Amino acid sequence: MNPFLITKILAFLMLIIAGFMLLPAGIALYNSEMSSLFSFLAVILFIAGICGALLYGLRKRRAEALSTRDGFLLVTASWIGASLAGALPFFISGAIPSYADAFFETISGFSTTGATILTDVEILPRSMLFWRSLTHWLGGMGIVVLAVAVLPMMGIGGLQLINAESPGPAVDRITPRIADTAKLLWIVYLGFTVAQTSLLLIAGMDLFDALTHSFGTVATGGFSTMNASVGHYNSAAISIIITVFMLLAGISFSLHFRVLTGRLDSPRMNTELKAYIGIFLAATLAITIGIHGDAYDSLFDSAVHAAFQAASFLTTTGFTTADFEKWPLFGQGVLFLLMFVGGCSGSTAGGVKVFRIVILLKQAFIEMLYLIHPRGIFTLKVSGRIVRKDLVYSVAGFFFLYIFILLCTSLVVASSGHDLTTSFTAALTTLGNIGPGFGDVGPSRNFSILPDYVKWFLSFAMLVGRLELYTVLIVLTPEFWSRR
Amino acid sequence: MNPFLITKILAFLMLIIAGFMLLPAGIALYNSEMSSLFSFLAVILFIAGICGALLYGLRKRRAEALSTRDGFLLVTASWIGASLAGALPFFISGAIPSYADAFFETISGFSTTGATILTDVEILPRSMLFWRSLTHWLGGMGIVVLAVAVLPMMGIGGLQLINAESPGPAVDRITPRIADTAKLLWIVYLGFTVAQTSLLLIAGMDLFDALTHSFGTVATGGFSTMNASVGHYNSAAISIIITVFMLLAGISFSLHFRVLTGRLDSPRMNTELKAYIGIFLAATLAITIGIHGDAYDSLFDSAVHAAFQAASFLTTTGFTTADFEKWPLFGQGVLFLLMFVGGCSGSTAGGVKVFRIVILLKQAFIEMLYLIHPRGIFTLKVSGRIVRKDLVYSVAGFFFLYIFILLCTSLVVASSGHDLTTSFTAALTTLGNIGPGFGDVGPSRNFSILPDYVKWFLSFAMLVGRLELYTVLIVLTPEFWSRR
Repeated sequence: MNPFLITKILAFLMLIIAGFMLLPAGIALYNSEMSSLFSFLAVILFIAGICGALLYGLRKRRAEALSTRDGFLLVTASWIGASLAGALPFFISGAIPSYADAFFETISGFSTTGATILTDVEILPRSMLFWRSLTHWLGGMGIVVLAVAVLPMMGIGGLQLINAESPGPAVDRITPRIADTAKLLWIVYLGFTVAQTSLLLIAGMDLFDALTHSFGTVATGGFSTMNASVGHYNSAAISIIITVFMLLAGISFSLHFRVLTGRLDSPRMNTELKAYIGIFLAATLAITIGIHGDAYDSLFDSAVHAAFQAASFLTTTGFTTADFEKWPLFGQGVLFLLMFVGGCSGSTAGGVKVFRIVILLKQAFIEMLYLIHPRGIFTLKVSGRIVRKDLVYSVAGFFFLYIFILLCTSLVVASSGHDLTTSFTAALTTLGNIGPGFGDVGPSRNFSILPDYVKWFLSFAMLVGRLELYTVLIVLTPEFWSRR
Repeated sequence: MNPFLITKILAFLMLIIAGFMLLPAGIALYNSEMSSLFSFLAVILFIAGICGALLYGLRKRRAEALSTRDGFLLVTASWIGASLAGALPFFISGAIPSYADAFFETISGFSTTGATILTDVEILPRSMLFWRSLTHWLGGMGIVVLAVAVLPMMGIGGLQLINAESPGPAVDRITPRIADTAKLLWIVYLGFTVAQTSLLLIAGMDLFDALTHSFGTVATGGFSTMNASVGHYNSAAISIIITVFMLLAGISFSLHFRVLTGRLDSPRMNTELKAYIGIFLAATLAITIGIHGDAYDSLFDSAVHAAFQAASFLTTTGFTTADFEKWPLFGQGVLFLLMFVGGCSGSTAGGVKVFRIVILLKQAFIEMLYLIHPRGIFTLKVSGRIVRKDLVYSVAGFFFLYIFILLCTSLVVASSGHDLTTSFTAALTTLGNIGPGFGDVGPSRNFSILPDYVKWFLSFAMLVGRLELYTVLIVLTPEFWSRR
């Protein structure tokens, strides 16, 4: 354990968060939202004061390499720290009067969940709405990945940090230096954001809406600035643009980088990508059949809504164009199933991830082959490569823990007197970083009805889900803290 | 593949089923239920005729050893055959006018699920009620296990057959000869049935009720002869007796044998058993706290109902003493969680099984240890013994397939226009061989409201669940039928 170095990096990370708060502060100034402006500036000064003092005090300590353990602790601590500080402007300005609510909203933002405790989003000051969407954008590609990209001192041990933060089994190094990889991933991410914002402007959104919705899309977050979410715009063009970008954001960003720079001959060999597209198309078709002639008369409308909602749930974004709880139950059932999938590894999406589902399905099939041919030798291949048994173990452990935490979280929600559908989907939607659930936490409602202890627990579930279970959970084991 | 031998054994198995139908036929005669008597006799003669002719035709074929593949096919075929034939008396006598319903009820019986399509059980003729409960008893320890115990010709290849039929990762051979093991397991099973029947008689039940409820208990089935299930008797003594025997039936029968014959020094070393008892006690305590002062005023009543319902769900029996959907939602949440557990391996209980949960939890924990100490060496131990990696793989594949089939089955139920709670718990309760679910398939309702295609699919889910997924699923793979 290296407490001084951890504190030092944590202080740098908090300064980055404070730096990003200058953006909503500028918007508050522009829109003359004085109480918001005051809140942002107060929080920025507060963070700068504490972190500046810490960094000054620790300036003479030499930086050593971070151990793997340090990495887990640092990443967990920085996400909690960012959420604790990020909630302050909402709380101080009175935009969200309860701190439990403000924290829930902020961690829902950073973890790209998009579950909200706000009944009326539209009455929030513009600067607060911007900050809310910006938390998605920072959390999507990852605060720590950003720090590794911009702080030279974090090159040492940066790989552990990124692995502890990034979605998916392991980070695909696209360059020899990890800081360069982090930089390139953020550049692709920024490029997608700019491209989507431009397209949404062309489709008729104003700049503020285009930017905030792009943040929510490329991060697979799901916060909207409108109460009716994307349904507010009632525009097929906007729905289709967001659908396409949600799907792109659900694909590995290193794959995007390789494709964009022509370094990949054939993405067709990628099993995960094929499965991801297959699941999306199958779900869209199934939902279209389910809702056509019932919720919507025109086949085009049915298909657009079906594709949007399928992409939104599959990529764990959580935007909505319709109150899908009014759809026929088969369509709802398909969405419910998609909540168990999630995007591809290395994307900004949450959930179990297609990669893990593919591995487990293949593993189950191989088990059957062994039962038929007990002396046969079968290997598990993904994307044409043999998968090491260690990885299968890790994936199996992940999947079980995921279901286990899901069920425990459901019970915590149920203890506050909510029905099974609400409890189970509230747990599923927070752990999977999706956003809306069904029942009392359905698309037309929100999480404000839950008591504070449930909000704190769900906040924890969002963090655990975003950091892919292990990073947070091992910090909670006694073995982590023992000296052995 | 050995089609003649498979046909021959199948014919013997069907004759055993027909032989057991003489019991309800006798009850029909005693109670002058002429249409039932006629139906049973007709089915017995029909089976005897076909199987007799088959056996006569194949009498000159020499018996060879069964291959593993033959075992899977034979077990799947005999369960389907037994259910197809077992449904006939209900259908012919008009007790259950639809064949889809009769088949559902019969496979629900054999698979020890206990889910029913009957709105009013009590109007059924006594002989039909007896046959309904007898299907539980035959399916609990296993039709094939019984055949191995009584037919000398099945000693060859009997182990594969029993492994293909028995719940749990692998059969614990308590004697060198597999036929003896099968015999001893059935004797213990019979002993429990007699013991429970005697105790229920003492507690005030009549012989018919005592016997049928004992069948439903030791098989962890759950069919009652009363509309209000065990709640009908409104007796703490009866509830407690059934609770104890449900818990016993949820424990490995080879463990019972060893303990009863003094061949085991210490069952304390059994990790699975400890976890099973721990889960039961924790669930009972949680439910008691949840329902005390709300559903029941007296602490004793709360504890008795809590223990009964916890044991019923944990062991996948499915008896009820109360409409638990009227309980506070926390208590319902605990029951919902128990639906994911199931009894011990080698018991008559269904579900995922405690053994698998223990292995997966330990595996997940070991994954975390590897993350903390990447160069450490950690072994997975259960009951003081190291678990082989192959078994962990198989368990991981099982768990994933279980959740996968669960979700697909939910979608099929949802397609018939049922809400999420109903769809999900209907799938969970049939796949886990439990009995009641929540919502439209809750304890005060039944499965009759579902359309036929859903009933057929759920019948399939019950079979797949009872035969522990792999046995049925591999018969459906093209690889099973290829000649390689």
